[in-house]
Amino acid sequence: MTAAEWPGGASVVSGVGQTRGVRKIHVIGIGAGDPDQLTLQAVKALKSTDVFFILDKGEEKSDLVQLRRDILDAHIPDGAYRLVEARDPDRDRAAGGAAYSPAVGDWRSRRADIYEDLIARELGEDDSGAFLVWGDPALYDSTLGILEEILERGSVSFTYDVVPGISSVSALVARHRTGLNRVARPVQITTGRRLAEGFPEGVDDVVVMLDAHQTFEKYAGEDIDIYWGAYIGTPDEILISGPLGEVAPRITRVRAEARERKGWIMDTYLLRRRTRE
Amino acid sequence: MTAAEWPGGASVVSGVGQTRGVRKIHVIGIGAGDPDQLTLQAVKALKSTDVFFILDKGEEKSDLVQLRRDILDAHIPDGAYRLVEARDPDRDRAAGGAAYSPAVGDWRSRRADIYEDLIARELGEDDSGAFLVWGDPALYDSTLGILEEILERGSVSFTYDVVPGISSVSALVARHRTGLNRVARPVQITTGRRLAEGFPEGVDDVVVMLDAHQTFEKYAGEDIDIYWGAYIGTPDEILISGPLGEVAPRITRVRAEARERKGWIMDTYLLRRRTRE
Ligand SMILES: C[S@@+](CC[C@H](N)C(=O)[O-])C[C@H]1O[C@@H](n2cnc3c(N)ncnc32)[C@H](O)[C@@H]1O
Ligand SMILES: C[S@@+](CC[C@H](N)C(=O)[O-])C[C@H]1O[C@@H](n2cnc3c(N)ncnc32)[C@H](O)[C@@H]1O
Repeated sequence: MTAAEWPGGASVVSGVGQTRGVRKIHVIGIGAGDPDQLTLQAVKALKSTDVFFILDKGEEKSDLVQLRRDILDAHIPDGAYRLVEARDPDRDRAAGGAAYSPAVGDWRSRRADIYEDLIARELGEDDSGAFLVWGDPALYDSTLGILEEILERGSVSFTYDVVPGISSVSALVARHRTGLNRVARPVQITTGRRLAEGFPEGVDDVVVMLDAHQTFEKYAGEDIDIYWGAYIGTPDEILISGPLGEVAPRITRVRAEARERKGWIMDTYLLRRRTRE
Repeated sequence: MTAAEWPGGASVVSGVGQTRGVRKIHVIGIGAGDPDQLTLQAVKALKSTDVFFILDKGEEKSDLVQLRRDILDAHIPDGAYRLVEARDPDRDRAAGGAAYSPAVGDWRSRRADIYEDLIARELGEDDSGAFLVWGDPALYDSTLGILEEILERGSVSFTYDVVPGISSVSALVARHRTGLNRVARPVQITTGRRLAEGFPEGVDDVVVMLDAHQTFEKYAGEDIDIYWGAYIGTPDEILISGPLGEVAPRITRVRAEARERKGWIMDTYLLRRRTRE
């Protein structure tokens, strides 16, 4: 990634080619489930967009694609927008969570191929396009990395900016009406896979995302409180909190039932180690 | 803090007293400087509020109080709102950053006294009030802790909910068009004071807030990139990024000049250790 000083309008032109119309792309954080989590800045960006790109991750996540369509319908009058949908390359899920990291590089490149093609084919040189990103584009999302990869390849040129969104992390703690950090102390955001390797060093407040294996169970014997949430911000929202040893079995049960019922689940949690202040 | 399961409407009634009108309080994250960072949910909460409480931290931060007033004027027609301003207790600043933590307990209690009094005096029993919180109420903000303290005292009763906001952390990385974490890796959010004690263990991506002493300088000899921002989202925004060893002196200079010019500064930065993937 290039070091950009004083980005100002946040436009860094990259790629080859003469001066000509420059495609603009907004990467828009849309919040983690509640359409009212959209910011006014995001609404303005939507209204200034000609073409929306939506990548479908397959049947199970079609609710999430529908939420994006609902957002567009709510803010852009009379369906006056162009929507381009494509199928996301299947990440190799066979080996489960453990394979997440090694497979990511390949998957990102395949995704970059698709995005590059979409931008070149569907976005006129004076058009502006947008990717609607779940939550905040800054957290466990590949869109920014993919756009940088495309710019480095140099065959398509565009400028882009990022509209921050409410992450599932912010939404989680707001619903539980608690903070992320305790006074003057740090907080770490990590993945289920990392947590399986051990409780992070030097922090007593840890937010866990991308956990397909209820890794919190591993710490049920410790003096820890959990604030757990699934489908946060949606009508299916479930929240459970309490001492980990007490509530872990209930979370595991509720999570399995919900997952069975809907066919997929998204959950996030904060682990807070009890300490003497 | 009480363990609340399935908060639903997020209303937990506390305190003494018979059933009667119950005061409602919104804790509303307003973003970290750009009024367009307000969410639609925050706008709705503003419109359903009778009384706004603003605590002034003294002359130097009056720009920030003005931003709150501008937000109200923009979203509530004809000044049809009631604003209650109070002076924040002065936190003992004499000993500088190092005194932050020990002084916080006292300061929080004094602040709770003021809030308790404001709520009891200014908020009718069927009224709803709101605190407009900078950034996201979940990050290094005392409002939620103070409300819990008041409820525990039991002399005023109310229910409250939290509207998440775009934090300065999200705003920082959006402006730099980078992510908080790298693929499948953790990120830590901490304070300048903690960073002075050592680079956090087990993470290569660290966001630093509340740093009055340019603590990043301590790591200028290491293989680290910095993404720094001051007054993010405001017309005074300054962004600098690059290899820490190269840009640290410039950040220190620019920071001192800006602070001198405006009389106060708010800055946040991400330190990203270069690693072999
Ligand atoms: C690929 S990451 C994307 C995160 C997103 N960029 C954000 O800011 O929330 C997906 C993970 O986010 C979390 N997540 C996203 N939306 C959620 C929701 N509505 N409820 C609970 N967890 C959610 C889950 O931990 C899920 O595994
Ligand atoms: C008491 S904390 C409050 C943080 C706030 N709740 C948030 O979500 O951003 C104040 C710290 O936030 C950071 N900060 C807040 N607003 C900022 C802005 N507009 N630009 C840069 N840093 C900011 C600075 O590190 C500052 O020391």
